[in-house]
Formats: sequence, C-alpha cells, structure tokens
Amino acid sequence: MSDIPFLDAVFSRGDTAARVSSTAWVQAMIDVESALAHAQAHAGVIPGPAAAAVSAARRAVGDADHQPPRGQHPGLDETVLTRAAESAAATGTPVGGVVQTLRDQVGPEHARFVHYGATSQDILDTAAMLITRRALQPLRADLMTIGTTCADLAERHRGTVMAGRTLLQQAVPITFGLKAARWLVAIDDAITHLDRVRDTTLAVQYGGAAGTLAPLGDHGPAVMDALAATLGLVTPALPWHGDRTRVADIGAALGVAAGTCGKIATDVTLLAQTEVAEVAEVADDDGPVRRGGSTAMPHKQNPVAAVAAAACARRVPALVSTLLAAMAGEHERAAGAWHAEWETLRDLLRLTGSTANWLTESLTRLEIDPARMRANLAPALNKLLDGPDPLGAADTFIDRALLHHRSQQ
Amino acid sequence: MSDIPFLDAVFSRGDTAARVSSTAWVQAMIDVESALAHAQAHAGVIPGPAAAAVSAARRAVGDADHQPPRGQHPGLDETVLTRAAESAAATGTPVGGVVQTLRDQVGPEHARFVHYGATSQDILDTAAMLITRRALQPLRADLMTIGTTCADLAERHRGTVMAGRTLLQQAVPITFGLKAARWLVAIDDAITHLDRVRDTTLAVQYGGAAGTLAPLGDHGPAVMDALAATLGLVTPALPWHGDRTRVADIGAALGVAAGTCGKIATDVTLLAQTEVAEVAEVADDDGPVRRGGSTAMPHKQNPVAAVAAAACARRVPALVSTLLAAMAGEHERAAGAWHAEWETLRDLLRLTGSTANWLTESLTRLEIDPARMRANLAPALNKLLDGPDPLGAADTFIDRALLHHRSQQ
Amino acid sequence: MSDIPFLDAVFSRGDTAARVSSTAWVQAMIDVESALAHAQAHAGVIPGPAAAAVSAARRAVGDADHQPPRGQHPGLDETVLTRAAESAAATGTPVGGVVQTLRDQVGPEHARFVHYGATSQDILDTAAMLITRRALQPLRADLMTIGTTCADLAERHRGTVMAGRTLLQQAVPITFGLKAARWLVAIDDAITHLDRVRDTTLAVQYGGAAGTLAPLGDHGPAVMDALAATLGLVTPALPWHGDRTRVADIGAALGVAAGTCGKIATDVTLLAQTEVAEVAEVADDDGPVRRGGSTAMPHKQNPVAAVAAAACARRVPALVSTLLAAMAGEHERAAGAWHAEWETLRDLLRLTGSTANWLTESLTRLEIDPARMRANLAPALNKLLDGPDPLGAADTFIDRALLHHRSQQ
Amino acid sequence: MSDIPFLDAVFSRGDTAARVSSTAWVQAMIDVESALAHAQAHAGVIPGPAAAAVSAARRAVGDADHQPPRGQHPGLDETVLTRAAESAAATGTPVGGVVQTLRDQVGPEHARFVHYGATSQDILDTAAMLITRRALQPLRADLMTIGTTCADLAERHRGTVMAGRTLLQQAVPITFGLKAARWLVAIDDAITHLDRVRDTTLAVQYGGAAGTLAPLGDHGPAVMDALAATLGLVTPALPWHGDRTRVADIGAALGVAAGTCGKIATDVTLLAQTEVAEVAEVADDDGPVRRGGSTAMPHKQNPVAAVAAAACARRVPALVSTLLAAMAGEHERAAGAWHAEWETLRDLLRLTGSTANWLTESLTRLEIDPARMRANLAPALNKLLDGPDPLGAADTFIDRALLHHRSQQ
Repeated sequence: MSDIPFLDAVFSRGDTAARVSSTAWVQAMIDVESALAHAQAHAGVIPGPAAAAVSAARRAVGDADHQPPRGQHPGLDETVLTRAAESAAATGTPVGGVVQTLRDQVGPEHARFVHYGATSQDILDTAAMLITRRALQPLRADLMTIGTTCADLAERHRGTVMAGRTLLQQAVPITFGLKAARWLVAIDDAITHLDRVRDTTLAVQYGGAAGTLAPLGDHGPAVMDALAATLGLVTPALPWHGDRTRVADIGAALGVAAGTCGKIATDVTLLAQTEVAEVAEVADDDGPVRRGGSTAMPHKQNPVAAVAAAACARRVPALVSTLLAAMAGEHERAAGAWHAEWETLRDLLRLTGSTANWLTESLTRLEIDPARMRANLAPALNKLLDGPDPLGAADTFIDRALLHHRSQQ
Repeated sequence: MSDIPFLDAVFSRGDTAARVSSTAWVQAMIDVESALAHAQAHAGVIPGPAAAAVSAARRAVGDADHQPPRGQHPGLDETVLTRAAESAAATGTPVGGVVQTLRDQVGPEHARFVHYGATSQDILDTAAMLITRRALQPLRADLMTIGTTCADLAERHRGTVMAGRTLLQQAVPITFGLKAARWLVAIDDAITHLDRVRDTTLAVQYGGAAGTLAPLGDHGPAVMDALAATLGLVTPALPWHGDRTRVADIGAALGVAAGTCGKIATDVTLLAQTEVAEVAEVADDDGPVRRGGSTAMPHKQNPVAAVAAAACARRVPALVSTLLAAMAGEHERAAGAWHAEWETLRDLLRLTGSTANWLTESLTRLEIDPARMRANLAPALNKLLDGPDPLGAADTFIDRALLHHRSQQ
Repeated sequence: MSDIPFLDAVFSRGDTAARVSSTAWVQAMIDVESALAHAQAHAGVIPGPAAAAVSAARRAVGDADHQPPRGQHPGLDETVLTRAAESAAATGTPVGGVVQTLRDQVGPEHARFVHYGATSQDILDTAAMLITRRALQPLRADLMTIGTTCADLAERHRGTVMAGRTLLQQAVPITFGLKAARWLVAIDDAITHLDRVRDTTLAVQYGGAAGTLAPLGDHGPAVMDALAATLGLVTPALPWHGDRTRVADIGAALGVAAGTCGKIATDVTLLAQTEVAEVAEVADDDGPVRRGGSTAMPHKQNPVAAVAAAACARRVPALVSTLLAAMAGEHERAAGAWHAEWETLRDLLRLTGSTANWLTESLTRLEIDPARMRANLAPALNKLLDGPDPLGAADTFIDRALLHHRSQQ
Repeated sequence: MSDIPFLDAVFSRGDTAARVSSTAWVQAMIDVESALAHAQAHAGVIPGPAAAAVSAARRAVGDADHQPPRGQHPGLDETVLTRAAESAAATGTPVGGVVQTLRDQVGPEHARFVHYGATSQDILDTAAMLITRRALQPLRADLMTIGTTCADLAERHRGTVMAGRTLLQQAVPITFGLKAARWLVAIDDAITHLDRVRDTTLAVQYGGAAGTLAPLGDHGPAVMDALAATLGLVTPALPWHGDRTRVADIGAALGVAAGTCGKIATDVTLLAQTEVAEVAEVADDDGPVRRGGSTAMPHKQNPVAAVAAAACARRVPALVSTLLAAMAGEHERAAGAWHAEWETLRDLLRLTGSTANWLTESLTRLEIDPARMRANLAPALNKLLDGPDPLGAADTFIDRALLHHRSQQ
C-alpha cells in the first residue's frame, strides 16, 4: 500500500496488498530473528534460554500469535516501527532498529544473542521471502477464482458463437467458450509458475557479514538448514546475498501473472465497448457510489473492474526490469541495487495481487450477451458459419483446457 | 510516501516526498475545484455566490490557508480522504468523493455548481500539475544545494590532482576540481530541464466529458484560460486528456535529474571504496543510530547517503518507461493507461526528490583526501605529471563550468 | 536496420533508419576525424598539410561528397568496415580500426596527426551526435507530413460528428475534426521537442583520454570550439564523457515522439475495428502483395500501417529506460553503460523513424466515413446532440490547434 | 545481428547470435511449413505427394540438410528473403512471401496444400520457438564453460583469502574460492531455468485464423500433435496466439541468465580496478589489434571482455519488460504487441548469448593474483584473520556449490 487511500483503492486492492504492509514487514523481520535464535540454540550456538527470551520478545513486541484478516498486525508495538525507520534513515536498513528493540526486550543477559552472527541482509532478505510466501496465498486464491470462473464460462459458452478478431478485425467465427478456455489455460500456467517459485525459489538467506558465517565456526550450515526448516523456506546451496536470481525469479513470475490478468482485462474492455457490447460488468448499486458511474456522464456504465485490472497490470513490466537490472550488483552486497529491490518487490506483489483481485471482480460480475455476439458477426463470418465444421476443434480445445485445469487442482 | 516508514526513510526523504502525500493530493483537487468555480463565476457561467460558497467549503474541508512545513495538511477533513478512497474503489477515480464532500458543504443551493461542466480527469490531471509544481520546489532547492556544493568543490580542488579513470582503469591525471565541475554542469542542466518543464509543461486540464466543454457553450475556452491564470499553470492549446505528452515530459525531466544524481552517487561510492579511500562521508554520531554503521561490522563506515541516493536513482528509469508507454491510450480517455500514470508520477517525484536529498547530504558531508588522491596515482600517471601541461584545459573547463553555473542563477 | 530484411520492412522503414546504417556510422566517424584535424590545424596544433592529408583520406576511404538517397554510402571502402569490426572485437570500440585506416591512407609522415589528442569516446560520441542530427531530418519531415495531414483532417471534419469515447465507452459527441486537432497538437509538440534537442543538445565531444585535453596544452578549448563550428554541433561547457544527459535527452524526445505516433496509431486501429468501421486504410493493390491482406482470411482488410506504427512505438519506452539507466556510469568513462548506449540510441532513432513513417502512410491513406461515425452514436449521445451547443468549444479548439500549428512552421 | 559489423562485434558475439540471423529465421519458417505438410499428410488432410513436394521445395529453396558452422545458411535462395521482406512491408508479416515461394516451387498441383489451414502467426510463432531452441544450444554451451571455469576457480582458490566487500567497503575476509562458488551456483541456476524453458515452454503454435483450426474439421488437434512431434516441440493444451506466456517466459529466463552474467562481469571489472588489481584479463597480442588496448593510453590494460559482457547484460532488462508488456494484446491476435515481440526476442537471444560468450572469454583469460588479494586486506580484516575460524563455512559452502554443480551435469 501507499499512504494514499485513494490510490490504494485502485492499486492495493485485495489481501495480497495487505500482506506487504509496514507491520507485515516488521513482523516478518521479528519472526526471522526469533527463528534464527531457535535454530542457533538447537545447534548449541547460543543458550536455550536466550532463544526462549527472543520468542518472548517476539510475542511482546510483535503480534506473532494473531493472524488478523488482511494481514494487519494491530498488536505490533509502534516503537519498533519508529526504530526501524530511524535505523533505515541512519544506516540504510531497518534491521538495526528491530534488533535493538528485541535486545531491549530480552534484557542485557541475552541481548548479545539476538541477531547473533547475522547481518542486516540476512534478516531483510529472509523476511522478504516470508512476506512473498504470505502474499502469494491470497494472490493464488484470486487466480484460482479467476480460473474457476473461466472454466465455468468455457463450459457454459461452448455453443456461444462470436467473432474471432485478429488485429482488431473480425477474422473467423470462434466461440466465447474457446476464448474463456484460452484465458483459463493462461491463468493455470500463471499459477503453476507461482507455485514453482513458492516451492523452489523462496529460500532462507543466512550468511553473516559476507557469506562465510564466520562467527558460527562449523555450525553455520547446520543453523542455515534449521532456520530454513523452522520458517518453511528452501535451503539454498549457498547464501545468495550476491546472487539475486531468486528475487528476479519472483519478479518474473509475478510479471507473467500480471501480464495474463492484463490480457484478460484488455479483452473485457474491448468486448464491453459501446459498439461491441458483448459483455458488461453488472452494476452493484448498493454502495455509497454507484460502481462504474461517471461524474460527467450518468448514462455511461464503465467496466471499472477490468479497467482497474488493466491499470495495475500496466505498471508491472517496468518494475520487473528494475529487479533484473538489480542483479548486476557489486561484490558481496550491492551499493544501491539491493536496496532498490525492496519496495519494487513489494509493489510487484501488491500490483499483481490488485490486478488479480480486480479481475476476479470483473469476471464474477460479467454479463455475457450471446445474442449480441451473434448479431455482431460480419457477413463474411456468417457465411463461414454456413460451411462445414465452421468451429473446427473449438470444443476439443475447450475439453483440453478443462482437463489441463482439473489436472492442476 | 509508502505506508512503510522504514522504506520512506530511504525512498521518500526530503520535502519533495512530503508534497506528494495523500493530503497534498486531495488538497490539490479541492484547490482545483475552487479555482474552477471562481473562473466560471468570472465568466458568468455560474453565480458568484456559488463560487464564494465553494471557497468557503475549501477553507472548511481543506487546509487552504495553511502551508505547513513538509506539505502536511493536518487540517484536512478526514472525511474527504475516506470518500475519495470510496469513490476510487467504486468508479476508479477519487474525484467523485471530493466533489460530493464539497457539495455537501455548500448545501443544496450551490451544489450543482460544484464541478460544473467538469469531468474527473479535468480535476485529477490539473491537480497532478499543481502537485508537480509544488513538489518541484524542494527538489530544485536540493539540486541548487548540490550545485553550490559542486561549484565550491570545483573551485577549492582546482589543484587537487587525482587519477582520471576510464573503464575503471586509471587513464591520465585530472583534478578533483574538474570532476566536481562535470558534476556541476550536469546538475545545472538538470535544473534547466526541470525549470523548462515547470514553465511550459505544467498546464491546466479542462475539457469536460470528452474535450468539448459542451456544457459551457461559448465560455469554455475563456474559463480554461481563467482557470490557468488562477492556478498559475500554462494554458494549453487544447485539453490534453488524450495527449499525454506533458506527463511524459515531466517523467523524462525527472529521469534525467535522477540519472545525474545517480551518476554522482556512483562516483562517490567508487571513490569511497576501502582500496581507493579518496573521499568519505563524515559520520555524525549524534543520532540514536550511528550513520553508516553496520550491524555486523563495527569497523565499517559505509557511504550510506551516496548508496541510498544510488538506490533511489536506480528505480527511476523503469518508471519513466511506464509513463512513455502510457501515452498510447485509447481515444478521449485511456482504459487503464491513464490510471497507471498517477502513482507512477508520484513515485517519480518522491524518488527523484529523495535521491537529490540524499545526495545533498552525501556531498555536504563529503571529506576529500587530496593526499590519498595523489598517492593513488599509478606510476604511468605520475610519469605523465612530469611532462608538459599534464592537466591541459582542466582549469579552463572549471572556469567554463562556474561561468555556466553563475549565468543560470 | 537489423540484418533481417523482413524485420527491417516493419521496424526500419523510411529514411531515418537508413541514416543510422553501418556505413553512415563509419562515415560519421571519418567525418569527425577529418573535422578534428582541420580544427587542430587551424589552431596550429598540427601542421596544415596533415589536415589536408586527412581530408584527402576521407575522400578516398569514405564517401564524403556523395549524399545518396536513403543515406547509403556505397563508396565507403569495405576495408574500413572490417577494421572497425576487428577493433571493436578486440578493444570494445570501433574507433581504432577507423583511425588505422586513415593513418595508412595519409602515410607515415602525417599518421601521428590523425586522431591527435583524441580518445575513442570523443570520436564515437561526436559521431553519434552527427548521426542523430542526420537521422532527425527525415523523422522531422515525416512528422511534418503527419501534422499537415492532421491539420487538413481537422479543417475538413469540423462538422463530422462522432462519439467521444472514454474508457472505451461512448461519452459525449465530439467531432472528428477535434480528434484530429488533438493529434495535430501532440505532433507539433513532438516536433518542438525534437527541434530543441537538435539545436541545444547535439554537442561535440572532445576531451581526450579523461577530459583534460592534456596533449593540446592551452589549445584544447579553442579546438573544441572550432570542431563544433565545423560540424555544426553545439559547443558544450565541458566534455561530457561522464555526463550522459545529452544522450538521455535525445532518447526522451524520441520517446515522446514515438509515444505520440503510437497514440494516433492506437486510435486508428480502434476506429478501424470491424464493429466501428469509422475509418479504413485504403488498399493499394498495385504491389506484388495486396496491402493489408491476410494469408488465411481474404475478406479481411487489416489497417497494416497503423498496426505496424503501433508495433514500432511499443518497443521505444523500454529503450529509453536503458539510456536513462546508463547515466549512472563510472567515473570518466563507464565500464559497460557507455557501450550499452550505442545500439540503443540507434534502435530508438530507427524505431521512432519507422513509427512516424508508417503513421504517415496510414494517415495519408485513411478513408473517413462520416455517415458511419454519425450512425454509431449511441442513443444517449444522439439525445445530447439535440440539446443546446452539443459540441461546445470544439470549433474554437480546432482553430487554436491550427493557429498553434501555423505559428510553428 | 544488426547490419553493423562493429556493433555485432560487441553485441552479437558467439554462435547464439548467428542462430538468430535472417537466413536462420526464414529457414525456420520453411522448416515449419514442411513439417506442417507432413503432419497433415499423415493425418490424411492433404495428399502425401503434396507433402513430398513441399519437402522437395524445402531442399530446393532452403538449406535443410546443411547445418553450417555459426548457423549461416549460405544455400538459402535469395529470392525467398526478398519476398519475405516484400510481404512484411505489405502485410506486416513475412510469411506470405515464404508461402508464395514454396507454392511457386511445388507447382500449381500442390500449391494449395502449402500452408494449408494455417495463418501467418502459426508459422512465425512456431519458427520463433524453433529458433529459440536452436539459439539456446550455444548459449547453454557457453554457460556450461563459465560454470566449469567457476568450479575450477572455486576448487583452486579455496585457500585464497580476499576481502569480502559490502556496499563497496571491505567487510570481513572471504576466499576467492567462495566468490567463484557463488558465481557457479548462479550460473547453474540460470542453466536450470533455461533447460526448463527448453523442455516445457517451447511449444508448437497451430490454430489457423483464430484458433479453431476450422479448415481441418476433426483433424486439427491430431495435426497439432504430429507437428509438435515432428519439430521436437511441446504440444500445448491450446493454440497460444492470444496467450503470450511462453514468449514472456523465454524472455524472463534470458533476463535471469544475462543478469547473472552481468553480475559476474561487474565483479570482474571491480576486481580489475587499478587500485584493486586482484584480477586481470590476460592480453593476447597475436591479433591485428592488441586486446584491451586504448587508442589514447598505451599503458592501460582494459578488461575488455568483462566490460563488453556487462554492456550486453545492461541492455537485457528493458527488453524483457517489452515482452511482458506485450502480453496484454487484443483478442485473438494483437494489433502491434505481437509484432513487437519478434525482434525483441531475437535481441534478447543474441544479447544474452553475447554476454555469456564475452564472459566465457573473460573468465578463461582471467589471471588471479592471490598475493594482491591478501595485501589488499584492510587492517581490521587482517585482525579478524588472527581470530578463530575466520573463514567460517567458506569451504563447506564451496563443497555444496560443487556438489550442486555436479548433480546438474
């Protein structure tokens, strides 16, 4: 989310955005520090009571046991947010402020075991992976709803003939079911892509100052493995502070998911054109403001959800390029490229979440007008309909798409 | 600003960011509605008392007379923020909520003269131009400070010999004064570019539903001219709802300014390398957290301000491409491309403002080590120093840069 | 141009592309070396006969006196192309190969005065400015043709009522003349932007190894000024090898020009939709292949020129971001960022030239169907037409656009 | 390749670039038409002799049986190249020219069975997949060489202590072996990513005019499957003309591979700095031009290969964003977005191939200076070396990286 409610209403819609909020980030950093203490206690690197003290501090400062709706962590101590910001202003990263808050909380006896042998990047990178995993859940749920809706449209509109359009010209007849089946396959592929990222890309980062974990002697790799297990993240072969493949991979998968949502939204806005009018977003007049209404033109019914989905999706490709460009950072931690990833990744998550959420709304409200689809057919297409097999393999392809869809669930 | 204080500490630093806040945007929209009512009253399109009522509403709802430090508008009625967000969620733009708030305030007698003959885009586009003008002021001030600092460095270090480096290899001797003079010229050009945008690009938008101003009969162009005069914006030849050249121009000028800040920041981080050590950001140990400190490596002194400046600058080019791509929108108002501009423009303003603010801090704290510069010279460069005129036109070029700088002020 | 004729047919159309060809680049480098020798002879830095020998070599090797149609330089010695490539493969820049060819040509007596006191970047950067100036000419001519065509459409279609469309929904009536007037203003602004770049941005680069012009003693600045005068380029305050504002500025102006062409092309493809059919690109059946024809659908008439213009324009924004990102290069010559500019600048020139050339073709072939425009009006818009002043200031705005247009010519 | 040899020397280096040449594209289109005829004959859709005639035409026109080094197809009939370009200029795609050439070749009896039931996009999309598969081979080979070289460096430099550097400041000691191991893991991941794309993304496209394969009646899906089998491509669930996930996926994988090459190249250029001098690219003075030499500074030894690798990699992220943005195309074939993919994909292939090829050269020429690495250690790092376990898990991590590497081969 931005700090502007009216922008968030368009660009931070749905639960994905809420899961990349300020408190969500700070909570994730606290979660990582706590899990690290436990992994180190388990390996005998720090005393068990120190780890217990960090757990207690996590409960006291953070909001560990409460997973509120929309990812807000109302219980999070305001102080830690302030300190994180002070630390970021002074050192360029928020981690010092989080660590200091935890150290104050655990008291002088255990303070030195908080953040033991870790560097800021360990905490922030691992928190980013946690945040991503948490944010992907509602995104996936929305994509699943889109998929289910498309599958339903594909099934119901097998017989709904419409114009296939290439270069915005009517080409040959298709069915709306086939069009929905194509949307379905693309959505299913986006989910597969995101699932792969979730299962193989989201890895713990733990390397210490420059990737050797020197303060841990022989215990480094074991602690890394335990930390990964505790947090449910992948164990990487090596700390990846200087190898940003994972962040770029997340960005690419989000870019593809947003691209697919943008494609469907584009089709909806085109089909909803006044002159085409083959679909419409059904208005819901219960709210304080009529959906899709215009301040200047009361007769208009804008496909607001599809337009907003398209707007969110349009902002994504450039942000992916920022992550790809950030890969070429300097040595063991980049002097700027690393920092440039943080808000970019967050914006990618909330914008992709937002486009999926708007598209869910658009498709679930979508009214299809089969008669208009048929009436819009140009004479040349009507003539083709009289020929043999005018729709060819449309049905077979719908079956394939549905089969592919069911095999993924 | 985002809603994450620790991200804002890095990426929304300085007054530019504050001037693109939520309240700043809503206040700007209120300012536009009020100026519009006055322009229309002046042209006889709406009654004078209606305009007076809108002014009163602006004072009541907004915070028109108070220009607080850092652009906060604490007096802004919370209701209007909420309504703007509700409107955005329902219709895709916040304007309806702002208009409704003003209408409620002026009462039924004048309500229909609020937002008369206007469309949402008129208000939001014109507000964006106001916001940009307001946000450019502190950005310009920071760039001026950078320029002054560079001019001072250029003058003071005319005789400070250092290695000129190409492809990161020492090439021939230069002076640090010449390097600072090059930074100076680039900063001065960025200011010139931004001034041109401020003076010729920031235009009022007023076209009504699709650019004809039909409800105003013959009065449309006169009202547009009066509105521009009232707000201190340029009068365009035509409403530009479907011609996004102005937004792209702002983006390009910000992109060049950020690029120049990023270039200087890159040079600083390279000169501050442990093995080069020709400059350092002087630490200020008074704050709660030592500037440039590291959680894992107490001996390190990171050039935090330059690194943060580089990080902000890195995020800018992709956002400019988003604005350029948004130019190809559909007909009289784009179905998504227009919306994609809003937060992108805002992010460009705050990131460019932030990179300039960090760079101001970096350069004003910069400690130069002329002895180390000399000691770092490779033997081949030392040998060149013994030849005739080893620094060629360095001094003449410094003079040219200073002359160019003074002629611009 | 690429080496793929079928890609060039779409993406390197028109004379702009031809002026950024391989021979055009090498010829420009030779032109710079020759002009440099003359500027140096004039300042007494090198002997006059040496400069004369370089001129003779330029005539012998290059194709200086022949400006063929479409920028081909058939007379250019093949050897110099090969040597430029060999040099690029070995050192990363082609300049060494060009210099060696000229040195061989002038003979041992004058060889050392070829490329005297210059570095590769001086030659390549200045050649890039020459190339840009030469390539902007046909681009400007095409934009002028587009402008003239739009002005004619605006005048002729003052009375052609059509739907104004926002978010792809019919909003209120406008005239096609007003729409064309908006295109016109955007094109005129793009031309103004490019003219400013041509007149103030295209500067000579001459700084020697690291910007001091050390080998020239006191003569450096005078030679720089003379070189600029000879080549018709701007004299910069300082060498700009480490300040890439100029290259980014060119990119931004091309980005805005391409964005405007892309916007108009988008409108044309939307108006040409089968269901809208308000415009069509008139087919020309004389060629070997019917324009706009489809291999699969003989009944289709695709608006090929507008589609191709849109395709070219779509590739531009990302390339501008590459130039902006390249600003943050290291020290006195960047280790990669500088090199990344070369082909990017060239692609920006040819793609912007190509989109303008396709759009010229599209608009000059465009058939307008006023009856269909009127027939397409939705009932709500027809009703508005019956009210008072339904087209408001449309005619006034057209007049303003035409006035603005004429004032620029 | 571009048409500029000196640009190709930098940006189209290695065999990947050669496999995306003009003749490679046209040959691929011919290959697809021929395979399609055979798949159709097999399904009984067209007569067997027609398919045989197309095969013969492929041998006559194309260069099917000759796979020359570097992918040149010298035997390709020039006419087909010309016709492809003519077709592209007239219709926006080259396919018509290729089809006409084959039809002329097979004679009137079989002509109508060439390109039967296919649309231009079927041929061009499938050819793009073939081209990609062919181009990925040399890219993979270069990445494998880089991996092997990194593995060797990791093994040999286990004991080579150097400074770990974060934010360009010395942080704690690491080994050069650990640094090389990190490069290795990133390269191995890039290969895995590309292999996944090759095995699951590169699918045949065959849908006819709008994805129904109407002219084939029931035979469409069977022909699609046979075509995929013939060409060794994946069978998609549905034709993907309107779902550009596959193209975006290829782009993303190339973006990650180029990003990794760019990261390693950045490290090399930084380590090769005059003041650091821990590595150098060994010069090879046998060629006509001394590698790494400078026209102005004979004492310099530039790390040309690393600089060129970095330059190629810098151009990639923006191009990926172009492909992602092209996903949001209109209906069954986009009016411009599809066309924008062609050269962008090709540029991504050749630039990624080129960065990998340059990096191969850089690393295989790289001279490591362990003594200098040790001597460069700042006092604070030297002091850490005296402590217990100063290199922590460095060796374990190297082992993990090597194990991971071997498991992939």
